[in-house]
Amino acid sequence: MSDQKRRRKLDPSASSSASTSKTPRASSSSNYAQDLRKQLKPDADILSSLRRLSAATSAAASSQKPVSISDLDLSSSCREVTDLDSFAVVHSIERLILSVARSILSGQGFSFDVPSRASSNQLYVPELDRIVLLDKSSSRPFANLSTVRKATITARVLSLIHAVLLRQIHVTKRDLFYTDVKLFGDQNQSDAVLDDVSCMLGCTRSSLHVVASEKGVVVGRLVFLDDGDRIDCTRMGIGGKAIPPNIDRVSGLESDALFVLLVEKDAAFMRLAEDRFYNRFPCIILTAKGQPDVATRLFLRRLKVELKLPVLALVDSDPYGLKILSVYMCGSKNMSYDSANLTCPDIKWLGVRPSDLDKYRVPEQCRLPMTEQDVKAGKDLLEEDFVKRNEGWVKELEMMIKTRQKAEIQALSSFGFQYLTEVYLPLKLQQRDWL
Amino acid sequence: MSDQKRRRKLDPSASSSASTSKTPRASSSSNYAQDLRKQLKPDADILSSLRRLSAATSAAASSQKPVSISDLDLSSSCREVTDLDSFAVVHSIERLILSVARSILSGQGFSFDVPSRASSNQLYVPELDRIVLLDKSSSRPFANLSTVRKATITARVLSLIHAVLLRQIHVTKRDLFYTDVKLFGDQNQSDAVLDDVSCMLGCTRSSLHVVASEKGVVVGRLVFLDDGDRIDCTRMGIGGKAIPPNIDRVSGLESDALFVLLVEKDAAFMRLAEDRFYNRFPCIILTAKGQPDVATRLFLRRLKVELKLPVLALVDSDPYGLKILSVYMCGSKNMSYDSANLTCPDIKWLGVRPSDLDKYRVPEQCRLPMTEQDVKAGKDLLEEDFVKRNEGWVKELEMMIKTRQKAEIQALSSFGFQYLTEVYLPLKLQQRDWL
Repeated sequence: MSDQKRRRKLDPSASSSASTSKTPRASSSSNYAQDLRKQLKPDADILSSLRRLSAATSAAASSQKPVSISDLDLSSSCREVTDLDSFAVVHSIERLILSVARSILSGQGFSFDVPSRASSNQLYVPELDRIVLLDKSSSRPFANLSTVRKATITARVLSLIHAVLLRQIHVTKRDLFYTDVKLFGDQNQSDAVLDDVSCMLGCTRSSLHVVASEKGVVVGRLVFLDDGDRIDCTRMGIGGKAIPPNIDRVSGLESDALFVLLVEKDAAFMRLAEDRFYNRFPCIILTAKGQPDVATRLFLRRLKVELKLPVLALVDSDPYGLKILSVYMCGSKNMSYDSANLTCPDIKWLGVRPSDLDKYRVPEQCRLPMTEQDVKAGKDLLEEDFVKRNEGWVKELEMMIKTRQKAEIQALSSFGFQYLTEVYLPLKLQQRDWL
Repeated sequence: MSDQKRRRKLDPSASSSASTSKTPRASSSSNYAQDLRKQLKPDADILSSLRRLSAATSAAASSQKPVSISDLDLSSSCREVTDLDSFAVVHSIERLILSVARSILSGQGFSFDVPSRASSNQLYVPELDRIVLLDKSSSRPFANLSTVRKATITARVLSLIHAVLLRQIHVTKRDLFYTDVKLFGDQNQSDAVLDDVSCMLGCTRSSLHVVASEKGVVVGRLVFLDDGDRIDCTRMGIGGKAIPPNIDRVSGLESDALFVLLVEKDAAFMRLAEDRFYNRFPCIILTAKGQPDVATRLFLRRLKVELKLPVLALVDSDPYGLKILSVYMCGSKNMSYDSANLTCPDIKWLGVRPSDLDKYRVPEQCRLPMTEQDVKAGKDLLEEDFVKRNEGWVKELEMMIKTRQKAEIQALSSFGFQYLTEVYLPLKLQQRDWL
């Protein structure tokens, strides 16, 4: 490497960008970071602004009954599942099996009527701001070569769920698969039928007591009961409390938080937990460590519904971050039948937004070029209904695609490790800078 | 599918194995499972056996000073790091930089002396039962085209760590990378130099306050302080407590457990937590959810050293499960310089062992055929010193390779979802069936 090249590498001021450029040199960036710090008002001011947000969210939640499919006259054309207690599920399995038995006895044969979960049977409903499942269904007769296997698997899964519910325990999808490997063949098959069974019985997968493994953690101003144990999330150190896989054993949520801070990644979570950000700005901080799992989504929804708190999201400034936000907000296509329980419609996009990169002068070298695949993912998002209906989001996304730059939350570390908790987030909150 | 084929699929007794075969039919397996259940003695008997194990482990730990590299006269030829407090690390960074400055002033130039972490510089020491780093090192001069970049990165990382320690915070490797993306280029480079710096300063990576993200969870008979908050792991519901990333903020471990149960996967962890297995057999249950991360390994070692408890491991019966066990026990090659702090030499292999498959009559269809890659991994393990020195392990591994069968912990679900906690583990403990 030549001496000149080396110097350029070491000295940020030797970088190619001119001082008039919007993308600043690293040195001026740090000065600017100092300027931003000076813009911070006393915490009391920021807190009173947050209190207004919290009060407004709570008032809205109390006054407006959330729109449901029945309000929209969609009940007859849509299929939704609800949380049922184990007694109700057991009862409905027994009713289903009795009706099958009656059908056999009357000479009509052994068959299940199974709702279709294909994307052709899904619809994004703007009034609900989520994807719902339409009411098409198909017959799954035992006496047909193409469906006999699936019909058998369906009967077996129904019987296994019945046993699990009677024992009052919870199992994983993997456990379920292993109870009859020979029949199921591979786990995709038992998993798919499990979703079918959920739809057939009209109950959530959690009601079936089949849980996914836990990934999420929570910390901050929240107290709840996990299987009867009282958990005080302000006293969970830096590690936080693992979000329980069995949401039906969570109860007694209490909080004096003003908002929920949803964080995409665990590195940012750790920074917030170690700095005890929730002591300065009363909040509940949670993360699913990347792609949200069902347990974290259910938990977030419980926080939102029961505590009536606004939810602010901190994700990477890339299409993937927005995609994650969309899963929390509108649900994934695979579980559209359960979108009512799994989604949290009005999450505010706090950051890191494409416009933040210049606004907070994230140095050029901490931004990453978007790959062709990133750009395609961004363009696909622009076609999604849930993005289209939010003008601010469209603008941000268009800016991202135009500049072809992305940035991780961690990029803010270039101004110092605690810039995130000491300047960026407080300033964002002070300016009510969310979309 | 023909009717006959279908019937074979549905009726386990129609499976091909003869009743004289060692691999049994599913129906006889369930009968056998019932027989095993009958063999269980009252819990009091099992508990008194566990108390003997616990007392023996504790006595051994108290009487035998663990072998260290200095006992083996290896101090001069081996390099090991220790936990240092932040004051000591700050001091040693300053000493290092002063010596570099003196070298420059005396005309000898700017250079770091960096220990080699290559595998040619690593050694498995049977007396220690872990991999250690030998004392070869190389010079990293600034005035050399091939090392100028690395020397610069090393200086930068030293300065960043110095700042982190002075602020008394913790950061992730990713944070570190983002403070100077332009210099580091990609994260592998800052990560590698971070390990170099650990070795150069003779302190653990935790002492540098650079932490990995947390993956592990713990539940059971344990109380500890996480950053000053008192955590009672019997009151952590089913979700458990997330193991903190910053081990140096963990203190005050207390426990009335008789052993630590180390579990490979979170599905098994969840079963044990929901069934509150630790109430029946006092234990501390922890999992890293697969490949162990540094935080979980450090935490396990703290449990072992401070509470003097035996550690029993429950992993899948495949080479990968054993590999995971080996990382807990002997460390990974990448971090061999820190093997003394990261490893837990005498973990007992409780299950699921290859011999368990027949002993507990895991049905044929719940076992999986080993791939060529699995077999190769198994054969490679047979060449590892830490396997060779344990005759029982060699036998089990040979059996695995001979039968070419593997099985997950979850395979035990074929006898019922709670077979693991109600029969398999209690019987294993009763029979002191560990290696």
